[in-house]
Amino acid sequence: MYGPGKTAEQCVRIVAELLAHGTGPVLLTRANEQQIKAVFAAHGDAEQVGGSVLWRRPEPRTDVRVLVATAGTADVPVADEVAITLAAHALDADRLHDIGVAGLHRMLAHLDRVTSADAVIVVAGMEGALASVIGGLTSRPVVAVPTSVGYGAGLEGVTALLAMHASCASGVTVVGIDNGFGAASAVARMLRG
Amino acid sequence: MYGPGKTAEQCVRIVAELLAHGTGPVLLTRANEQQIKAVFAAHGDAEQVGGSVLWRRPEPRTDVRVLVATAGTADVPVADEVAITLAAHALDADRLHDIGVAGLHRMLAHLDRVTSADAVIVVAGMEGALASVIGGLTSRPVVAVPTSVGYGAGLEGVTALLAMHASCASGVTVVGIDNGFGAASAVARMLRG
Amino acid sequence: MYGPGKTAEQCVRIVAELLAHGTGPVLLTRANEQQIKAVFAAHGDAEQVGGSVLWRRPEPRTDVRVLVATAGTADVPVADEVAITLAAHALDADRLHDIGVAGLHRMLAHLDRVTSADAVIVVAGMEGALASVIGGLTSRPVVAVPTSVGYGAGLEGVTALLAMHASCASGVTVVGIDNGFGAASAVARMLRG
Amino acid sequence: MYGPGKTAEQCVRIVAELLAHGTGPVLLTRANEQQIKAVFAAHGDAEQVGGSVLWRRPEPRTDVRVLVATAGTADVPVADEVAITLAAHALDADRLHDIGVAGLHRMLAHLDRVTSADAVIVVAGMEGALASVIGGLTSRPVVAVPTSVGYGAGLEGVTALLAMHASCASGVTVVGIDNGFGAASAVARMLRG
Amino acid sequence: MYGPGKTAEQCVRIVAELLAHGTGPVLLTRANEQQIKAVFAAHGDAEQVGGSVLWRRPEPRTDVRVLVATAGTADVPVADEVAITLAAHALDADRLHDIGVAGLHRMLAHLDRVTSADAVIVVAGMEGALASVIGGLTSRPVVAVPTSVGYGAGLEGVTALLAMHASCASGVTVVGIDNGFGAASAVARMLRG
Amino acid sequence: MYGPGKTAEQCVRIVAELLAHGTGPVLLTRANEQQIKAVFAAHGDAEQVGGSVLWRRPEPRTDVRVLVATAGTADVPVADEVAITLAAHALDADRLHDIGVAGLHRMLAHLDRVTSADAVIVVAGMEGALASVIGGLTSRPVVAVPTSVGYGAGLEGVTALLAMHASCASGVTVVGIDNGFGAASAVARMLRG
Amino acid sequence: MYGPGKTAEQCVRIVAELLAHGTGPVLLTRANEQQIKAVFAAHGDAEQVGGSVLWRRPEPRTDVRVLVATAGTADVPVADEVAITLAAHALDADRLHDIGVAGLHRMLAHLDRVTSADAVIVVAGMEGALASVIGGLTSRPVVAVPTSVGYGAGLEGVTALLAMHASCASGVTVVGIDNGFGAASAVARMLRG
Amino acid sequence: MYGPGKTAEQCVRIVAELLAHGTGPVLLTRANEQQIKAVFAAHGDAEQVGGSVLWRRPEPRTDVRVLVATAGTADVPVADEVAITLAAHALDADRLHDIGVAGLHRMLAHLDRVTSADAVIVVAGMEGALASVIGGLTSRPVVAVPTSVGYGAGLEGVTALLAMHASCASGVTVVGIDNGFGAASAVARMLRG
Repeated sequence: MYGPGKTAEQCVRIVAELLAHGTGPVLLTRANEQQIKAVFAAHGDAEQVGGSVLWRRPEPRTDVRVLVATAGTADVPVADEVAITLAAHALDADRLHDIGVAGLHRMLAHLDRVTSADAVIVVAGMEGALASVIGGLTSRPVVAVPTSVGYGAGLEGVTALLAMHASCASGVTVVGIDNGFGAASAVARMLRG
Repeated sequence: MYGPGKTAEQCVRIVAELLAHGTGPVLLTRANEQQIKAVFAAHGDAEQVGGSVLWRRPEPRTDVRVLVATAGTADVPVADEVAITLAAHALDADRLHDIGVAGLHRMLAHLDRVTSADAVIVVAGMEGALASVIGGLTSRPVVAVPTSVGYGAGLEGVTALLAMHASCASGVTVVGIDNGFGAASAVARMLRG
Repeated sequence: MYGPGKTAEQCVRIVAELLAHGTGPVLLTRANEQQIKAVFAAHGDAEQVGGSVLWRRPEPRTDVRVLVATAGTADVPVADEVAITLAAHALDADRLHDIGVAGLHRMLAHLDRVTSADAVIVVAGMEGALASVIGGLTSRPVVAVPTSVGYGAGLEGVTALLAMHASCASGVTVVGIDNGFGAASAVARMLRG
Repeated sequence: MYGPGKTAEQCVRIVAELLAHGTGPVLLTRANEQQIKAVFAAHGDAEQVGGSVLWRRPEPRTDVRVLVATAGTADVPVADEVAITLAAHALDADRLHDIGVAGLHRMLAHLDRVTSADAVIVVAGMEGALASVIGGLTSRPVVAVPTSVGYGAGLEGVTALLAMHASCASGVTVVGIDNGFGAASAVARMLRG
Repeated sequence: MYGPGKTAEQCVRIVAELLAHGTGPVLLTRANEQQIKAVFAAHGDAEQVGGSVLWRRPEPRTDVRVLVATAGTADVPVADEVAITLAAHALDADRLHDIGVAGLHRMLAHLDRVTSADAVIVVAGMEGALASVIGGLTSRPVVAVPTSVGYGAGLEGVTALLAMHASCASGVTVVGIDNGFGAASAVARMLRG
Repeated sequence: MYGPGKTAEQCVRIVAELLAHGTGPVLLTRANEQQIKAVFAAHGDAEQVGGSVLWRRPEPRTDVRVLVATAGTADVPVADEVAITLAAHALDADRLHDIGVAGLHRMLAHLDRVTSADAVIVVAGMEGALASVIGGLTSRPVVAVPTSVGYGAGLEGVTALLAMHASCASGVTVVGIDNGFGAASAVARMLRG
Repeated sequence: MYGPGKTAEQCVRIVAELLAHGTGPVLLTRANEQQIKAVFAAHGDAEQVGGSVLWRRPEPRTDVRVLVATAGTADVPVADEVAITLAAHALDADRLHDIGVAGLHRMLAHLDRVTSADAVIVVAGMEGALASVIGGLTSRPVVAVPTSVGYGAGLEGVTALLAMHASCASGVTVVGIDNGFGAASAVARMLRG
Repeated sequence: MYGPGKTAEQCVRIVAELLAHGTGPVLLTRANEQQIKAVFAAHGDAEQVGGSVLWRRPEPRTDVRVLVATAGTADVPVADEVAITLAAHALDADRLHDIGVAGLHRMLAHLDRVTSADAVIVVAGMEGALASVIGGLTSRPVVAVPTSVGYGAGLEGVTALLAMHASCASGVTVVGIDNGFGAASAVARMLRG
């Protein structure tokens, strides 16, 4: 369930319905403080990361590993949305932070985690170059999430989005700006058991 | 191998090297007439679709099926690039043409082919709406290719690219404008045996 | 009367003049809280939906039916502006919410309401695909309202506006972003008794 | 039938099919010289205006009148596409050329034709102001077609498209750049007998 | 003196210097509340309109007349900046409000004031069509000021700016968005005694 | 008369009419080779500069002087259109070429011609800085013409147009990209005898 | 260290680490009030300019001189970031303010400081013309920083960025919008002892 | 001397003047075939690379080394312009081709050439990521040249330009799209003997 545009009351009601009509996980994303407070008051048995709330987190699968890599510290909130959405799909996130391409040694130090992952989600703002570099290092699916991190010429994520599409690494796909939920959903489509 | 920016002689030489240094398929894309003529003169044992030439097409796998859907007739050349690139990865394309969303019945008539495919590549210009519709119909990977088909407000594919990113279907990923090669490569990453 | 750029006092005065110089409906749109409070204090015999206030709602005509369809919950405020403007023209809105194309079955479940309407106003943000789909299902006038709902690649409604213009459904027309008033006014021009 | 992206042979074949499977009008738009030559050779009983070819023009209706107004001489080819598409819908075009708003007297000289029309299609490039002016003069439907006429700041029609959407005349709707076919189709939806 | 980016103290000091080093008018524009309060406390013998403050308003010339026309009520603050800047140049503004082209009769009712002015400054947002219309009615200088009034497709004034540049009226010139000061300065250059 | 969009025959006919219905100058701009050839064949008593043809050049006035300054050699064709349009208004152009701001000494060497002109038309592509510099040097009207000269980041004149509008020199006005005709017409409005 | 996206606690901890693991200067940029308060409370022996805090300012080198020129008063905060970053690299800033090209005499009055500097950093918003002018006056490195100063057609610095890239002065390089840190870092790369 | 916008005759004359008025190198860039043919006929003692012609190439300096790195084969023509412009400044280019970041090993194989160069010019289209990676590997000046190589989302170089400005590597500077001449000129400013 996507939070924006709904009242706190609507959120509480929809969560209640979703919890009643099944036994699977229920996920609320992009919730504001008021919405989160309301749903916790009504349905407290949940876990929260940033603006996301997850009920009934399933046991994570152990047969696959998804790497979630961020270019900088400021990309972490989007990576959090990726991770909790993966969790709702029973996928665990192997997180690797702050490996932007201007400090290539930091990424090379974890090269094996990159090359051995079953899929990689790259979360990067600014010029988004990390997606190209990782796309060239692994033959597995790479999904790139442009973020609105940065200022000026970053054009609130549009530069990263365009750059990721113009990437010289073939077979990298891209989701919308800051769309951590979409990237995790895409990987869940790919790794269906 | 990507044709643009190379002379016909460079193309011939690189093809020769690639054929000599392995036994796998060799693919040339976006080649112009002169390049195609030259490579066929030198290495004629190939098949051509539009601007793409493939040597040593491998036997297609029979365990997976990739649907390649186009919105309109004019999207076909990009779908051709998708198909021959899939072929180079031993993947067969199940092609479904001219099912743009303004004629919903045409797509609904083939609903089973959409829902049973292991992955879907949607090739669509103009407003790119087909990706959203198909994304909602299948739980398998959907890769969208915006095309530069259309005129005026289509902005040479930028509108379709943005629309696909703003898609209300979660988990649809997108490649660059007219980038059939990239979409097929992405699916090949996902369906590695 | 369009609210923005006017003081609460100006609003009150203009409403008074309009009520005095005729017997027809008077409509104030895009009013802020202060303006609404002021006009209600002065001329309380009105009804309000969101930022719109209507005095002297006429009896709705029974010979025509206008469908107002929204893609998502967040498009509802714009649909509200559509509905109250239609009301001022003696046109009733048959409202159909949350039928975005990623959940095609929801729309198909109400297909008869779509095809039997005398005119359809489609209110949709994100990629705006709903306009294309509905345009292909009815031969009656379809007016599309792009909304600024969504984020990132939605570019505050510009993506939806462009996508609706690039639509593959012929004969769909478009009004400005979030311009519910304009869409309802356009339909009123078409359905003049 | 839309010409671009089809071979001359495809055009001939589709025209043949359309003529065989019904008795109504058949319209080919945006055809190039080669396509036109081929279809005339095969099915000569047609009339051509610019890149449009119409077979079996129906008798025009006499109960309605559609005004097609252009701002400048260079907008005429798009107005031609409007007119022949109207003709295919049995609607006659009352044409009024070169009435751009910088020469207001030229339009005022024909004011009665503007105000008495059942619908108006405004074809205008550059700043597209004509749509606003005419929108204020008639209470009937007004459909605006931005054209790519002009240069520089006209941005190949994008300026006119945006200007028409930002129009201060309420209830004017807009179709895509140079999309005469779309405008005529929209009016045909409105004036269905 | 342009207010933004200066502290209230800097404003007070610069005004003091300017008043001390001459006997002519001193103008402060785009000042915020704090700046205005501070300069009035220090140099109270001034008049204020919106964010502009003028000291030593000169006697207006009687040999020339500048028409300042606005399309809508919301354009008035920019027209206020035009008027006070003209005043600083000893030019009186003949103001004509709310004559947007969708209500052509309102402008035609004052046609003589338009055609007899020595120069016209047109202040208009949205689609900016008023500049084209007035440019066609007078042979005197016309300076157009696009305003950021409007929303959505108005793109915060960019649409009006582009539309004014694409204007079909020859010899109309344009200043920056909301730049009332610039337009008045331009007319002052033209009407130097 | 503006050439584009007219046939050679139309041009000949309109020129004939204009020459017949008056004794003043007649100007054809943006004409292509074919149009020029045709009008010269029919009405040879004319002079041509680039794509402009002028019949009945009036005696130039001697009481005013208009400076036409270009930043670079490539701006000259637009300056030619300025000059011949001025000539049609009986205004002589004092031309000063290649004084782009990166070579400030070249402009300073002609400072008196800049400061003594009754009006200045600045023709500049690339970053358009010349308008700001000259605007600061003279208190007379300055009209800036952005040109599509340059490549890449010049964005075919859009950069120059935006830069001229963001100019730090107050009272500089701007016409459309490459619109030499418009700039000269604007100055003619200002300098009416 | 770049402040945005970090908590005050993270800032304090990273500063502590950086101070502990070396003896060189430590720089925090773009810090908000809360971050600055926190780091000063923990590590007070620092100097602050705007949002930047510097610990252990090194002795400035005396063999080179870097000129930091701003076009207007509002560009000063970015120039402050330039200066403190230069200081962290042991480079002193020779500052020259408010020399925008519309007041050419102000810059010419300091011509020797421009031509004798070892490198020049030009900080300018609006149309960014100062970079072109200075680029033509010195044969030393010139780094241009576009700022988001200005409004409307300035497009929040994009116009200045594009204009600086389209500059007619050869060999001027550009950094991102408002990126004073980047410009100073670039000059530090050039002037390494 | 910059070729575009000059006739072949003008080129010949200017070259003659430049050769006559000094003994240093003379460089013509962006010349078309006709211009090149003409200048060679008149002044044959020159060398040509692509559209650039150099007379009197000076002896290259041996105390500095400039690395010119390209991301792909298609960037080579711009790198050629860089190299010949460096040659005109007595600087030799150490060229390293086809080291785009999707094939990181190719660049790492030449790491010493990157880190030991006195300055690096990075020529890259598509997403321009190479500039960020190299900027992180060397502490020497890095000048990035975005190229118009690529298609679709590359937006003819605008994506690379924006991406390079949003680069996460500090102190990288950027020149205009395809502006090899500018990049080489910038490095010449930095490495003046």
